[in-house]
Amino acid sequence: MVFSKSHLALLLSSPGALALFPHCSNGPLKNEVICDSSAAPLARAKSLVALYTLAEKIDATGNTSPGVPRLGIPPYEWWNEGLHGLAGPFANFSQEGEYSYSTSFPQPITMGAAFDDDLIKAVATVISTEARAFNNANRSGLDLWTPNINPFKDPRWGRGQETPGEDPFHLSSYVHALIQGLQGDSSDPYKRVVATCKHYAGYDMENWNGNFRYQFDAQISQQDLVEYYLPSFQSCARDSNVGAFMCSYNSVNGVPTCADPYLLQTILREHWGWTNEEQWVTSDCDAVQNVFLPHEWSSTREQAVADSLIAGTDLDCGSYMSLHLPGAIAQGLVNESVLDQALVRQYSSLVRLGWFDAPEDQPYRQLDFSDVATNASQQLAYRAAAEGIVLLKNDGLLPLALDSSLSLGLFGEWANASSELLGNYYGVPTYLHSPLWAAEQLNVTVNYARGMGSSTDPSTNFNWPALWPAAAASDVIVFISGITNDVEAEEKDRVSLSWTGPQMDMIGQLAGLGKPMVVVQMGGGQLDSSPIANNPNISALLWGGYPGQDGGAAIIDVITGKVAPAGRLPVTQYPSSYVQEVAMTDMALRPSSRSPGRTYKWYNGSAVYEFGSGLHYTNFSASVTTQLQASYAISDLLQTCKQSNETYLDRCTFTASPLQVNITNTGTTTSDYVTLAYLAGTFGPAPYPKKSLVAYQRLFAIAGGATDTAALKLTLGSLARVDETGNKVIYPGDYSLLIDNQPLTSINFTLTGEEVTVDEWPQPDGNRTKKGVTGFEGYFVPGYGSEQVALQ
Amino acid sequence: MVFSKSHLALLLSSPGALALFPHCSNGPLKNEVICDSSAAPLARAKSLVALYTLAEKIDATGNTSPGVPRLGIPPYEWWNEGLHGLAGPFANFSQEGEYSYSTSFPQPITMGAAFDDDLIKAVATVISTEARAFNNANRSGLDLWTPNINPFKDPRWGRGQETPGEDPFHLSSYVHALIQGLQGDSSDPYKRVVATCKHYAGYDMENWNGNFRYQFDAQISQQDLVEYYLPSFQSCARDSNVGAFMCSYNSVNGVPTCADPYLLQTILREHWGWTNEEQWVTSDCDAVQNVFLPHEWSSTREQAVADSLIAGTDLDCGSYMSLHLPGAIAQGLVNESVLDQALVRQYSSLVRLGWFDAPEDQPYRQLDFSDVATNASQQLAYRAAAEGIVLLKNDGLLPLALDSSLSLGLFGEWANASSELLGNYYGVPTYLHSPLWAAEQLNVTVNYARGMGSSTDPSTNFNWPALWPAAAASDVIVFISGITNDVEAEEKDRVSLSWTGPQMDMIGQLAGLGKPMVVVQMGGGQLDSSPIANNPNISALLWGGYPGQDGGAAIIDVITGKVAPAGRLPVTQYPSSYVQEVAMTDMALRPSSRSPGRTYKWYNGSAVYEFGSGLHYTNFSASVTTQLQASYAISDLLQTCKQSNETYLDRCTFTASPLQVNITNTGTTTSDYVTLAYLAGTFGPAPYPKKSLVAYQRLFAIAGGATDTAALKLTLGSLARVDETGNKVIYPGDYSLLIDNQPLTSINFTLTGEEVTVDEWPQPDGNRTKKGVTGFEGYFVPGYGSEQVALQ
Repeated sequence: MVFSKSHLALLLSSPGALALFPHCSNGPLKNEVICDSSAAPLARAKSLVALYTLAEKIDATGNTSPGVPRLGIPPYEWWNEGLHGLAGPFANFSQEGEYSYSTSFPQPITMGAAFDDDLIKAVATVISTEARAFNNANRSGLDLWTPNINPFKDPRWGRGQETPGEDPFHLSSYVHALIQGLQGDSSDPYKRVVATCKHYAGYDMENWNGNFRYQFDAQISQQDLVEYYLPSFQSCARDSNVGAFMCSYNSVNGVPTCADPYLLQTILREHWGWTNEEQWVTSDCDAVQNVFLPHEWSSTREQAVADSLIAGTDLDCGSYMSLHLPGAIAQGLVNESVLDQALVRQYSSLVRLGWFDAPEDQPYRQLDFSDVATNASQQLAYRAAAEGIVLLKNDGLLPLALDSSLSLGLFGEWANASSELLGNYYGVPTYLHSPLWAAEQLNVTVNYARGMGSSTDPSTNFNWPALWPAAAASDVIVFISGITNDVEAEEKDRVSLSWTGPQMDMIGQLAGLGKPMVVVQMGGGQLDSSPIANNPNISALLWGGYPGQDGGAAIIDVITGKVAPAGRLPVTQYPSSYVQEVAMTDMALRPSSRSPGRTYKWYNGSAVYEFGSGLHYTNFSASVTTQLQASYAISDLLQTCKQSNETYLDRCTFTASPLQVNITNTGTTTSDYVTLAYLAGTFGPAPYPKKSLVAYQRLFAIAGGATDTAALKLTLGSLARVDETGNKVIYPGDYSLLIDNQPLTSINFTLTGEEVTVDEWPQPDGNRTKKGVTGFEGYFVPGYGSEQVALQ
Repeated sequence: MVFSKSHLALLLSSPGALALFPHCSNGPLKNEVICDSSAAPLARAKSLVALYTLAEKIDATGNTSPGVPRLGIPPYEWWNEGLHGLAGPFANFSQEGEYSYSTSFPQPITMGAAFDDDLIKAVATVISTEARAFNNANRSGLDLWTPNINPFKDPRWGRGQETPGEDPFHLSSYVHALIQGLQGDSSDPYKRVVATCKHYAGYDMENWNGNFRYQFDAQISQQDLVEYYLPSFQSCARDSNVGAFMCSYNSVNGVPTCADPYLLQTILREHWGWTNEEQWVTSDCDAVQNVFLPHEWSSTREQAVADSLIAGTDLDCGSYMSLHLPGAIAQGLVNESVLDQALVRQYSSLVRLGWFDAPEDQPYRQLDFSDVATNASQQLAYRAAAEGIVLLKNDGLLPLALDSSLSLGLFGEWANASSELLGNYYGVPTYLHSPLWAAEQLNVTVNYARGMGSSTDPSTNFNWPALWPAAAASDVIVFISGITNDVEAEEKDRVSLSWTGPQMDMIGQLAGLGKPMVVVQMGGGQLDSSPIANNPNISALLWGGYPGQDGGAAIIDVITGKVAPAGRLPVTQYPSSYVQEVAMTDMALRPSSRSPGRTYKWYNGSAVYEFGSGLHYTNFSASVTTQLQASYAISDLLQTCKQSNETYLDRCTFTASPLQVNITNTGTTTSDYVTLAYLAGTFGPAPYPKKSLVAYQRLFAIAGGATDTAALKLTLGSLARVDETGNKVIYPGDYSLLIDNQPLTSINFTLTGEEVTVDEWPQPDGNRTKKGVTGFEGYFVPGYGSEQVALQ
């Protein structure tokens, strides 16, 4: 917006807008340190908390903080969502006109497929901008409970769609970019918004076979914890200065995460140095209650809130703390000073967001609806979708040649998708462009028939008859189908990875017509598309995930070649038998007698499509132009590292400058290319992963015959393996650096000398045995929390 | 309504209304036999089908029959629902005014708890009356795809709520009354409506652990089939002359039921004598398609429709037959004569419904909206709810003494329930009376707070704070909660039998207040209420199921004693560990190494509350006044039977006249009493069931000190056991007749002599191995149909 004094006057004259912010200029606090913008945030927060009565402090422990009217502190709602655009439950979209919509980006699983960190930062910057505009209108808060950065461990997970994928390096890199976009640069005097890394930790199941997320005990080895479940959270806390964490419903190795000082204090705050007290941990909604029931970690309700607060949960999504802290304090289970610490963390965070400061000096306070859903933001939403679409099969039909005589058949439950495009956690998008809408913008004849009912119940083929004449009239058939939040959602894990029988029947009948045919597989979790891959009558297969408000246009533009596809699968596409081979509750990554292993690193079966799969409308070659040594002495690497004064050894660079990889488009179609760099080899503790992603970079619009260069930063962390106690170690051995899935080029090198630990992992101590519930006579909760239902 | 000629003229002048019925009076058919109301239905139907072209016949195979305009045959929609009142998907309720609502009764699981066959017949009569009124207004059809009469085998089943319970005798008796009410007396010239017994057979799972209903192969022994899965269907076909059957999604012992001549021809039509050709079998929706995929029973689509039609599926819910019969006939896979037979069955059924006859002579054609939702029907809906409520625990608090100073606290997700009261398959009820509404009609102070979010996601306690002051202000606490169609529904089986942790937490906190407290457990499937049973601070526990449009009033009236409870649990309430002990896919009834057994007959654990449980506000004693012999010679029983000319020996009476049981109310409160008669003993093949229900009768309003008499009809079938090949046999041995669960009285007698088979069961023959799909290259469907996911 263009700032004007008259506008400001209007803003200041609006009681509604003023109600958002504390009365620092003229209220009872105006002479307190909290209102002194030159004071340190921590000192300011402490001065405020010191003015609170115990009752007022206790009132401030829930997500809907009532404020303290006598001090001019307004209510504040901590629970705000922004997964891929502003979202509920408290984002207040107006019915029409200004603030009635915002920009809705693709789901993270689709944005993850773009493998483009700059894109992610740009998207997150739009989200934080729009959050600020809504906040200035008293329609949303200043902190967002995003990202969901648990790795997408099992394809059944109903919320895997909220994550960028299965690979911990990818997630760590993605989330770093995302937090920069949400929070802004650390040098800014004010944070744009506060991001919240969730769900810490080991959360990746909703409800599998009677194992509910809020009572599940995830049994995770220290090796898997460090190697797989925590890297993204380490990136948040240690490397990206995220403003908040959320502890999760489940317990880890016996202890509910919101009551676990090992996770919340030893690892998060001490080991990762997340000790800036302007940061806080919130519980997932009702997770503090769940510490009592059904976890039965604490023997009484009062003990549960005391345990959670003492462990380091600073905010309770819910009202359990406010209900039971009076009793807990009266019983001496927790000191008021612990409560003070939690509140100081909350309020210092709000200080850093400018909540207490005059709006005139804060650029973010000037944002308004003219900054929401701008043309640039809409274009970014389109670009995010287009970058995330993955081409999995193509016999040459695509890109589809268009001429006005073409009769295009568009079929399937997703062909005219509307809110399905958004996945979950969405607000009001600016528009919803379905594939059908996009096709109708082309100068061709479009024949549309849905052809099926819902994706959950295949028992209605009443729409099928309309499909056959439409198919008969079509020159080319595009079938857009898959899954929706009907089968993968919060509280709902999938039970099958298969296309349904009726879907396959319809695909088979359409393919049987012998016409050129494209299938677009939609939804966040992968389906087993081997029947499509193997059907010679189907020319092409695309995956589109949940592509957001402009997703239909992106899909049609890829099909017609307006955009050249370059996305890569951010997860493994397993065969459907996978769900029979491993329990969702099994957290181990490595194969065993009860599991074929998880992710591309460890799965010992044949993936239908591997992590990183993605074809183009052209071909590429690669060469590494940075000269690597044939051999490196580990001691030399560490010596260089220590000279760099880097606190964390795993962040030291491996090569002095980033590895230069030349990528040449050897075909004729201009195209993006995602450079994926893996390390493989026999080093460190057996078994060895097949390979591990260590760097990626998306290059843009490489013309036919042209070459662009990726600059890949490799670190000592790239080389390290994790031992069984969780230590990160550089081992001697033979290493191979591979560029791309079917390597376009590779380089071998050797590390020599003694192994060196670059990150020594703190071990848990203390009693991790639950106390059981004693407060309720006759109480009974069945004990199926930790393992799958055993049936013989 | 009062019939008037002017009304008739209006009706006849309405093109919309006329479009409902064939033009027999003045159309092209007026001189054909089909329009000759004096001719036999079968001859009439044959004459019509003979006029159809092959294409017209094929068009008539789907549920939405397009009719034959050139012959004056209008479209007819076969798919109409009436589970507990008129329901979708094709029932056309108007937006307001006439036909904008109808009577909505409780779900069958609640009506089953009434154990009152006369009630069921009365309810069904209202439903058929209302269906006729809607049909006359062109808003619904003449056949209803109800009842769902599969036994409620496993408490997890999402559609168990649609059935009267777990006991096969109970279901058989219930469904006989229901069909009488829906179809009318067999002596009527016209059927009221046609009922459809579904889902034949072995269908009782939606989606358990990746086992989907439409691909599941139920492995059922002949013994279990005859003893448990088929009695209710035998009652429909052999004993109640039901007009239609529906074959189910699943296969049984390898063969999809809709393509199984053993089930559809050998058992249904031949063994049960369902050979009147005015009856038809429809497929469940898309089940013919499922014969091809995912069952892979038939190798091509054309073979699947041919196999289904030949096996005896006369109607296809869907359009698969109409799509693929042309190919099937062209390939010589099925003769046109088989199609003719199916259509004759359809049209002769419509003849029996008066479809082709003049309206003037048909009372049912005179019904209109004045016959819908009458005061009597509303009262019946209330009575059905009140009769079905079951009192499981009472320390004397109930009935609750009311005076105007009472402050009543009403809490829980169900306290202000609206459409939750209806369960599933409902239309527009006349009204929805929640418990809160009913309490507000009392002259007391009512304090209401919901206290929880949805029953699926316990992660929101944001409504809790309102609960504590409301509870503090209350003298008595009523907590109404449980489950809804959020967790048990079509396509959704439950995974847990437990109250959720937050529900239990809230119950515990409320109970901890030490006030008089009542819990009302709602929903169709049972929860494990042992924590409530065992909590000394909770005075009373009721179960209400899905009590329909007036369910809230019925609940409150039972609590306050306006109605004395007399319902009985129609299912076993298992401990929550049950779901860990047996797979839903396991169809066996008897205990084994992989199952603790199913239903009150076989479960070898301790039920929380047994089948038949139900307390009263008084006590009863019983005495059998009919003199039984100490011993009977089996040969004598058979001799008497054969003299009676009864075709089916198991229907012969055991005692010459019904057994008279005097029931005396030994307390002071007037109350209904359900007389339950069980047989137990060591006779027939081991193992022996604990006991088996053989008769029941509800007695009404027995005053304190008064006696009423139940007349229980016992048959040779009551005495019979089923051997391993499926034969029903009378065995020598010691028999005990028990009146009530904790027997009020019992009688022992002995049968002597040689065992005699009273029903010889036909054995399956032929190849029951699926053919596999060959029509679609590269096709793949995972083979997890028949057994649970094996995980170690």
